[in-house]
Amino acid sequence: MIKAGIIGATGYAGLEITRLLLGHPKAEITAVSSVSFTGSKLQEVYPSMRGIFEMTLQDDRAVIEKSDVVFASLPHGLSEGIAAECYDSGKLFIDMGADFRLKNEDDYKQWYDGAYQSKKLHEEAVYGLPELFRERISGAKIIANPGCYPTSVALGLAPLLKANAIDLRNIIIDSKSGVTGAGRTLSQNTHFPDCNEAFAPYKVAVHRHTPEMEQTLSEISGEKVTVTFVPHLLPINRGILSTVYTIPHDKLSAEELYEKFSAFYNMDKFVRILPLGETANLKNVKYSNYCDISLHLDERCGRVIIVSAIDNMVKGAAGQAVQNMNVACGFEEDLGLLLIPPAF
Amino acid sequence: MIKAGIIGATGYAGLEITRLLLGHPKAEITAVSSVSFTGSKLQEVYPSMRGIFEMTLQDDRAVIEKSDVVFASLPHGLSEGIAAECYDSGKLFIDMGADFRLKNEDDYKQWYDGAYQSKKLHEEAVYGLPELFRERISGAKIIANPGCYPTSVALGLAPLLKANAIDLRNIIIDSKSGVTGAGRTLSQNTHFPDCNEAFAPYKVAVHRHTPEMEQTLSEISGEKVTVTFVPHLLPINRGILSTVYTIPHDKLSAEELYEKFSAFYNMDKFVRILPLGETANLKNVKYSNYCDISLHLDERCGRVIIVSAIDNMVKGAAGQAVQNMNVACGFEEDLGLLLIPPAF
Amino acid sequence: MIKAGIIGATGYAGLEITRLLLGHPKAEITAVSSVSFTGSKLQEVYPSMRGIFEMTLQDDRAVIEKSDVVFASLPHGLSEGIAAECYDSGKLFIDMGADFRLKNEDDYKQWYDGAYQSKKLHEEAVYGLPELFRERISGAKIIANPGCYPTSVALGLAPLLKANAIDLRNIIIDSKSGVTGAGRTLSQNTHFPDCNEAFAPYKVAVHRHTPEMEQTLSEISGEKVTVTFVPHLLPINRGILSTVYTIPHDKLSAEELYEKFSAFYNMDKFVRILPLGETANLKNVKYSNYCDISLHLDERCGRVIIVSAIDNMVKGAAGQAVQNMNVACGFEEDLGLLLIPPAF
Amino acid sequence: MIKAGIIGATGYAGLEITRLLLGHPKAEITAVSSVSFTGSKLQEVYPSMRGIFEMTLQDDRAVIEKSDVVFASLPHGLSEGIAAECYDSGKLFIDMGADFRLKNEDDYKQWYDGAYQSKKLHEEAVYGLPELFRERISGAKIIANPGCYPTSVALGLAPLLKANAIDLRNIIIDSKSGVTGAGRTLSQNTHFPDCNEAFAPYKVAVHRHTPEMEQTLSEISGEKVTVTFVPHLLPINRGILSTVYTIPHDKLSAEELYEKFSAFYNMDKFVRILPLGETANLKNVKYSNYCDISLHLDERCGRVIIVSAIDNMVKGAAGQAVQNMNVACGFEEDLGLLLIPPAF
Repeated sequence: MIKAGIIGATGYAGLEITRLLLGHPKAEITAVSSVSFTGSKLQEVYPSMRGIFEMTLQDDRAVIEKSDVVFASLPHGLSEGIAAECYDSGKLFIDMGADFRLKNEDDYKQWYDGAYQSKKLHEEAVYGLPELFRERISGAKIIANPGCYPTSVALGLAPLLKANAIDLRNIIIDSKSGVTGAGRTLSQNTHFPDCNEAFAPYKVAVHRHTPEMEQTLSEISGEKVTVTFVPHLLPINRGILSTVYTIPHDKLSAEELYEKFSAFYNMDKFVRILPLGETANLKNVKYSNYCDISLHLDERCGRVIIVSAIDNMVKGAAGQAVQNMNVACGFEEDLGLLLIPPAF
Repeated sequence: MIKAGIIGATGYAGLEITRLLLGHPKAEITAVSSVSFTGSKLQEVYPSMRGIFEMTLQDDRAVIEKSDVVFASLPHGLSEGIAAECYDSGKLFIDMGADFRLKNEDDYKQWYDGAYQSKKLHEEAVYGLPELFRERISGAKIIANPGCYPTSVALGLAPLLKANAIDLRNIIIDSKSGVTGAGRTLSQNTHFPDCNEAFAPYKVAVHRHTPEMEQTLSEISGEKVTVTFVPHLLPINRGILSTVYTIPHDKLSAEELYEKFSAFYNMDKFVRILPLGETANLKNVKYSNYCDISLHLDERCGRVIIVSAIDNMVKGAAGQAVQNMNVACGFEEDLGLLLIPPAF
Repeated sequence: MIKAGIIGATGYAGLEITRLLLGHPKAEITAVSSVSFTGSKLQEVYPSMRGIFEMTLQDDRAVIEKSDVVFASLPHGLSEGIAAECYDSGKLFIDMGADFRLKNEDDYKQWYDGAYQSKKLHEEAVYGLPELFRERISGAKIIANPGCYPTSVALGLAPLLKANAIDLRNIIIDSKSGVTGAGRTLSQNTHFPDCNEAFAPYKVAVHRHTPEMEQTLSEISGEKVTVTFVPHLLPINRGILSTVYTIPHDKLSAEELYEKFSAFYNMDKFVRILPLGETANLKNVKYSNYCDISLHLDERCGRVIIVSAIDNMVKGAAGQAVQNMNVACGFEEDLGLLLIPPAF
Repeated sequence: MIKAGIIGATGYAGLEITRLLLGHPKAEITAVSSVSFTGSKLQEVYPSMRGIFEMTLQDDRAVIEKSDVVFASLPHGLSEGIAAECYDSGKLFIDMGADFRLKNEDDYKQWYDGAYQSKKLHEEAVYGLPELFRERISGAKIIANPGCYPTSVALGLAPLLKANAIDLRNIIIDSKSGVTGAGRTLSQNTHFPDCNEAFAPYKVAVHRHTPEMEQTLSEISGEKVTVTFVPHLLPINRGILSTVYTIPHDKLSAEELYEKFSAFYNMDKFVRILPLGETANLKNVKYSNYCDISLHLDERCGRVIIVSAIDNMVKGAAGQAVQNMNVACGFEEDLGLLLIPPAF
């Protein structure tokens, strides 16, 4: 059993990774921490955990000391120091935050207004999207767990980019996210009566996940990709659905499209390419690690439309983090992740 | 007082127009009909109406006879006959359905699989989007009330098309609609547990509102416009929000964009151009006749993004129908429509 | 036109009273205030108001000076001073808060941990539930607008208590409220992901509305009434539904029950006694000033069950405040309150 | 591995039991059936199952033949014949429907308007509420899986009834259920726009689960118990919360109450007695087999209030069915049921 610790266990992503690790056959949680609730027990913050996991919340240091693998779910800027400690003591560090996602420090400066303290750590870090970068993750010591939006988008576009099949200057991504994506922190626009029966985009074309998407898409395609990205807040708890509009270089039939995607994800258990005629729906992936992708043609306008759906807390956060741990540690990739979406 | 009758009063749009007309200072409802509930009283179908409006549901003929203006909310194909009767007896006919929306019969054949019985009636019919076609509506005898999606889209794009400011081959419309848009008829995907906490597109790039949008946009621009249109089903009751992606011919500043829209809708009470920096949200228009439009630039990709929000049952259906009646009858355009969105 | 001012206009109840007064034919809003947003315009806090009512938020003093009738929506303890100022200058004061609801200062001390500063003001104040105390409200200068739960409960029980028909020691009230009842202030349990798809009671048998209910019920019955009251938080925006369990002294038929209630509310436009066999539902009263009451017998156990449904923001707050103004000022009672519930 | 078959696998309860059995370490699903979808594959009805479980739906006979344990999720009246076949061939039959729940045929006649075909089968059947009747279930061949409401109520009241602590004529049960409780079949009141932002009771004091509750409560207490039971429809997917009002014979302190419940459920992993001061909430049990119970005193009125919360589809249906299988087959009781409620 690998010893796992969770820093920031009382945030939504932290609780979710706790929940998943409790069902993992080769991991045991040895420590959890929280800045706001140090000294409390987890079930005092989340009564759902009563009788299941009643560990006392400690400080970050305790978590690092007691664990072989450390998951951190922290606001950006706070992970780098913890990563350094883990790295120095030979532990695996999986960062749920944004600190290690961007390879180019200028991008980080521009979008996050921060700086890198240790270039070496950033060189060591790998971007943990297993379906696309599995080889690098195996054996890695610092893993940047991808953002939720970029996960849905990269999985939806990779087969077309790899095949050099679409116009790299004409990618439009219209995403919709459940409210857990905004985390546990209170805000007016996530106050129930302000959020329920409401719907709107936010951070139109200026969301911080944009450079992360472009980095991944550019790497896959081998050329610079720019995207227009508009996220929206959906009044539901879980899920991200991205509707992606592209223009293929050459006309593709629906069947060719389906074949291309199916072949690309042939070995990937967590990506489900839906049969032609079906449409990805958040209800079919919620509470699971699946990414459902449906494929559509707008024959009149010559566009290919890809719809990609994930649970933002699982494949978009905690589930992918566990998947990364599995890959990095040489476990079977789906250990602890055989979660069946409940449909309703 | 003008005598108003409602055919199909027990559908969602029919009930909504009933509700609005009850508050109209120059109209009185003289008859209502329903195929499924003839002989019942309205409050037996909608207990919300108890003590407010308890009229007995009659057949269509009674409605036509007793009314000066007839609103019909029917499945497509059923309005043309009623229109003929109204026209012959000099009554105003306002069709909430699709029968008179498309000018080109070939489009109707292709998308609705139907045929026009009377070319004359179709020539008489005007497309009732008052902000764009006010002059034609004044004095009209047959008015095609626009579809909900096309209303949100046409209002969002008209200023740019009129100014010949955008690429007509690169318009992408990603719309999201509340469930009342699907009407009162039961279906599996609007069954509460299948619909709640779910989200998906439907009829991707093949929705029947596409040719209606293109017809209006082409007319405004003077050139043929084609659009990629993808609607999604939102698990809320009311509202349509369309996120529209365009490419301007020349670079536009945000301020220029704002000026263009403000000037275009200068005289239109029901269109609110939001200050730069704000974002249209369904909660600010629900239960009202407003269309909120917010304007955004993706400077990195050279795109202009327009977000247009309406209540699908009001500005997208019954409210616009009343607005059309007001214009056609020479009433003040906002009579009976001073509905303040309740915010929560 | 009477000049109306609103203190606390940016809270939910404050905004709702603003919305209602804008449609009132004999009132005009002359000033609005807000502690948090003084100097801002209302549409900056509530974009729903853009183009409709863009008044600048002032301080409380300005509101008192400019108004004939002052509505205050404040946390308890803050209304008494404002009431004194209004009273001294001959203005009508309608308090949406709790300061004047309890006649017995001991009750106020026990449940609100506060004291009365001026006994005279409290003697002047009348409890503003028009259906039950209309005569007193007419001509009053200080009106305590009832709590939302007590409104639903008092209307549901009054006919039985007046007729001395039920056991006063065996009244159980199980109420469920939408989240707007908790107001605009942020809290963890009204954070969308914590509140959505959740349901629980709160303040079980210790809610502050309990003594207010008992005061009204005792006054109607002429004897001391105690009740068990348990409120629950419903994951919807609007509405309070109270299910009230009673034991009749003598067996009552359903028809007798219906007759008793219908006769009692014969003259009350806003109370709808549903036909036997129907059940009160929040959807039929939301966004309106109606109170729907349905009557049920548990013949096996000898109980009478009353279900009472209101919109907590309208009949449970702002609508009732306007109704009180109408009664106090000698206007027709339903002026500005002809709001038709939209059903969906 | 035991061979398990599911009759009625495309209903909500049928799908849920499929989902749970797929994670059971000692059971394998050998056949599934559906009247409406015979010949289809499960993922065609529930796309959530794609890639996970793609079994073809067969007829009932095939399920019986291939299975050691048969779960049936059918409308009442249809299970008895299947039970007979299973019994004759020595298979374990677990009925999710109502056919075997009532011991007294007169009750069945009165509430379900049906008759028993085989008294012997009914004598063989045991009521499968493991926490209360574990011994009988062990080795049983026909198990009546309890109704969802009765499960929440019986667990909430058993400790008080067993201790003869409350007045048996003064039990009031106010229950609220998520919409999955109404099943997959379409109806107007579960149509999204009619159900969302709505709330109402239904079948007030005449719901069929009443005699089932009374049967269990009477058996536990040893005396005849009658209850007033009012269910309400909550606009959420999952969960039943019952607020139960009782009058204790003698005054009980909160601590005594807590001790009584804790001792009673000392060995029952799935019942969590919350610490005094906490309140049961559906969000803490959803998607799990837990029953959370919180205890409250109304000291002013001398009442004990019990709040009991379960997931209606798990502990109220499929989870309890698996628990019954585990007990009947001598497996550990929590096999396949270690489901952690996700909190959000």
